[in-house]
Amino acid sequence: MKRILTYATGTALFAALPSFAQEAKTYPAPGEIVAAAKAEEWIAIAPSDLLVMDLAPDAKSKPRRVVIQLMPAPFSQGWIGNIRKLATAKWWDGTSINRVQDNYVVQWGDATDKKALPEGLAVVPESAYATQYVPGAIARRWEGNVVTQAVTVGPRYGGSIYPEGPNIYDSFSQSYSFVSGIPLALSKNRVVTDTSITVTPHEIWPVHCYGMVGVGRNLSPDTGIGAELYTVIGHAPRHLDRNIALVGRVIEGIEHLSSLPRGTGALGFYEKDEERVPIISVRLGNAANDVPAFEYLSTESASFTAYANARANRRDPFFIRPAGGTDICNIPVPVRRKPVK
Amino acid sequence: MKRILTYATGTALFAALPSFAQEAKTYPAPGEIVAAAKAEEWIAIAPSDLLVMDLAPDAKSKPRRVVIQLMPAPFSQGWIGNIRKLATAKWWDGTSINRVQDNYVVQWGDATDKKALPEGLAVVPESAYATQYVPGAIARRWEGNVVTQAVTVGPRYGGSIYPEGPNIYDSFSQSYSFVSGIPLALSKNRVVTDTSITVTPHEIWPVHCYGMVGVGRNLSPDTGIGAELYTVIGHAPRHLDRNIALVGRVIEGIEHLSSLPRGTGALGFYEKDEERVPIISVRLGNAANDVPAFEYLSTESASFTAYANARANRRDPFFIRPAGGTDICNIPVPVRRKPVK
Repeated sequence: MKRILTYATGTALFAALPSFAQEAKTYPAPGEIVAAAKAEEWIAIAPSDLLVMDLAPDAKSKPRRVVIQLMPAPFSQGWIGNIRKLATAKWWDGTSINRVQDNYVVQWGDATDKKALPEGLAVVPESAYATQYVPGAIARRWEGNVVTQAVTVGPRYGGSIYPEGPNIYDSFSQSYSFVSGIPLALSKNRVVTDTSITVTPHEIWPVHCYGMVGVGRNLSPDTGIGAELYTVIGHAPRHLDRNIALVGRVIEGIEHLSSLPRGTGALGFYEKDEERVPIISVRLGNAANDVPAFEYLSTESASFTAYANARANRRDPFFIRPAGGTDICNIPVPVRRKPVK
Repeated sequence: MKRILTYATGTALFAALPSFAQEAKTYPAPGEIVAAAKAEEWIAIAPSDLLVMDLAPDAKSKPRRVVIQLMPAPFSQGWIGNIRKLATAKWWDGTSINRVQDNYVVQWGDATDKKALPEGLAVVPESAYATQYVPGAIARRWEGNVVTQAVTVGPRYGGSIYPEGPNIYDSFSQSYSFVSGIPLALSKNRVVTDTSITVTPHEIWPVHCYGMVGVGRNLSPDTGIGAELYTVIGHAPRHLDRNIALVGRVIEGIEHLSSLPRGTGALGFYEKDEERVPIISVRLGNAANDVPAFEYLSTESASFTAYANARANRRDPFFIRPAGGTDICNIPVPVRRKPVK
C-alpha cells in the first residue's frame, strides 16, 4: 500500500502527471491541461531575457545551473538594465551565495562588500516599485498595454470586491492577474496611517511568489542597484510587495538554491567563508553556453484560464472538495523547455 | 555597503531582531512585539503533545532532530490517536524520508510498504477533516469552546465578507483565525459543481501553512492511517485543506527536512535507497531524551493580536508601505524554547 499525498500537485515546474482518461467521469488535473495546451499557446522567452547563473558543482561534482527569466517592460526596467550591465561585465563571477533563510529567501552577491561596481548604473526611484494603471470600462478585464486579460478564478462567495477587477479575492490587494508570465496585483494606492487610509489612483505591481527574484537594498530611500539579488524559497512574503524591486523569477534549477543548508547567522546569513557556495558565472542567456529554448504558457491563452480555474477547483480524482478559490501564488505560470521536434 | 533584504522578517521561528528604539518615531517589528510579550502570555506545550523525530546524523555527523506539536482536540484526534500508538510502538524506527518535492512537501514513512502496522488503529472518516461550527451572535468573534478569539487584521477595503467573522479576506475561505497555535479557516460547507454551489452549516478546519504536518492517503474514501506523514516546505498548498488530514506542525528543526536534496522521481520521491535519510526514532515528547520545554504565544493574548496586526501592516524602518492585510500563513504562531531563569 503506497500512500501518496496526491497524484497531481501541479506545483512542480515540470511535473509529469499520470492520465486518468479511463475514469468514468473525470476532470483534468492542472498539469494535464498544461500538457494538452496547443503549441501556439506557448510563448518563447528570448535568450536575452534570461539570466543564467552557474554555481560551483555540488559535493558529487554535479553542475548546478539556475535560470532566471527577467521581467518585461514596464516593470522594474531600471534595475533590470543594471542587471544586464552587471552580467555583461561578468561582475558576479567569483561572488557567492551568502544567505539562506528557511521559509524566506536565498540571497547572493559580493560577500566582501568591496567589489567595485561598473560605471553607469542607474539609481531607480521607489516609485518604480509599482506601475500606474489607467482603468478601463470593461468589467473583469484589466486594460492598457500591459495587462490584457484577467483570469477569473472561482466561483467565489460574492461579487467582485472591485467592480472593474476579476472575481478574485486577494489578502494583499484588490485583485490579481498575470501578464507575460508575471504574477501581478492590482490596487488603489493606499497610504495607511494609524487613523486613516488615503486612496489615490490605481497601481499594478509584481508580487512575491515562490521563486520570484528581487533586489536587496538598504533602508529607504535606497532601492538597491541590482548587484545583490534574492529569490523566495518559502511562503510568499507579500509584505515585501511595493517595498522592494522584483526583477524576474527562477524558471529552472531553483532546487540548487532552496536545498542549500540554512545559514546560522542573523537573517540566515552564512557565518563562515567555506559555507558560501561560489558563483562561477552569471550571464545573459544569449551570452551563456548550452542554454535550451524556454517557453511559458501564455497567460492570455484559453489553456491558462482553464489551468488557473482547475488550480482553484481541484476535481481530479485525489480531491473530494474543490476549494472554490485560490491565491495568485498557487497559480504558478507553467514554463517548459521547448519540445524538440 | 551591506545590502540586506530586510532587517526583520519575523518568518523565522526564532529570529533574533535588532532594536530600533533609538529612532525618532518607530513601530515595533513583529519579532520585537513577540520578544516583549509577557511571560504569562506564553503557553507551555505538554511534552506528551510533541512528536520528536531523530534522523540519522548529517554528512558532518551533526544530529538532526525535528520536533512536531500535535494538534489539540477537537481537530484530527482520530489520526493523532493512531500517531500516538505508532510512536509508542516505535513503528517509525528504521523507516525513512522518502519524498522531497520542491515548493511542496517532505514525506516520510515505510518505503517498503510492507511493514506491519500495530493493531487497534482507527479508520477515520472524511468528515473529520473539518469540525462543525455553531455560530454565535458576537460580531468578529468565533464562539464555541474551540475558537475563542479571532484576530482582526486590517484595515481592509470594505467590511467583513462574513458578518460574524473577523474583517479578514482569505482566498480559500470566508475568514481565518487561530486557536492553540493552530491556523484555522472558517467557512460554510460548500459543495461546488459545474453549475451550482450548495451551502450548508459552518465548518472550521486547520489549514496547510508552511510547516504543517499531514497524513498521506490513497484515493477517497481512504483517509490515511497516520503512518505516512508529510510537512509543507513551500507556499501553502491550501487546495489540500479539507481533502487531507492535518495533525500538527513542525516547531523546531524543519531545516533538516526543507534543505534535503529534492527527489528526482515522480512527485519528488527518491529513486534509490541510498537517497533516503534514515529515521532513527520517533517518540512522543514525554518518551524522548533531552526534550526542552516549548511554549507558544497564546493566540488569545494581546501580544498575539498586536503581532498579527504588525505582520499585516509592517511599519518598522525597512518598510515604506504597509500592505494593509495579510494571509493566515503569513502569521506564523511564535514558538520558543522556554527561557531558562
